[in-house]
Amino acid sequence: MVVGNSILLDFSGVVDDDSHSEKTWKEIISKLVEIGNMNMLHFASYKFTEVIGKEGAVDSKQQNGGITAFALLSESHISVHTWPEFGKVMVDIFTCGSTAKLEDMIEYLRTNIQHQEMIITRLERGEQT
Amino acid sequence: MVVGNSILLDFSGVVDDDSHSEKTWKEIISKLVEIGNMNMLHFASYKFTEVIGKEGAVDSKQQNGGITAFALLSESHISVHTWPEFGKVMVDIFTCGSTAKLEDMIEYLRTNIQHQEMIITRLERGEQT
Repeated sequence: MVVGNSILLDFSGVVDDDSHSEKTWKEIISKLVEIGNMNMLHFASYKFTEVIGKEGAVDSKQQNGGITAFALLSESHISVHTWPEFGKVMVDIFTCGSTAKLEDMIEYLRTNIQHQEMIITRLERGEQT
Repeated sequence: MVVGNSILLDFSGVVDDDSHSEKTWKEIISKLVEIGNMNMLHFASYKFTEVIGKEGAVDSKQQNGGITAFALLSESHISVHTWPEFGKVMVDIFTCGSTAKLEDMIEYLRTNIQHQEMIITRLERGEQT
């Protein structure tokens, strides 16, 4: 058995404003927790107002930065980071135990985030011998 | 360029009680943020009092469960999950931007968490063309 599973989802081509709002992600994470048969213990999010340009410097002309959201779960965590300036959204789901319905959660994200590409990385964590 | 970097650290053979306490991880995460040249926006942790046995059922004889800790950073996040019953600790560091001193952070964890084995997975997130 393994102790946990990490699912890392990298979305590209995410250009609508809603996919970079705190309100949207609070709703999506609540829905994911419900779909995944999980229990949320704590939620936090943050909206960035600065955008880092491609050269690594703050681009003061753009005030609509991305968001970070995090849910601490009985079954580990969900994190989200978005970059509207690059059209990128990255969602990490870390679960322990065998009750989480991970495939249903992935399918929910695939159909509810408008995107051009979704790359999934699946990792088993802490092989238990 | 890539938008972010994920460093996933899986520690095994972590048997001392301190490595499964909220107090320890609050201190370690604060130190990591300092070493990594990062800014913490929010911190949360949770102590589990139940232990899930190897068969997936709650083992009511064991009341000293693991902890979960999470730091939301200007530069993304750090998460920690521990399982004292398995001697496991898993730390995820997600960073964006190029200023984070990731190798120094890894070295700090390597030397400050008593363990038998540390497996590192490094992933580049969101290749930006």
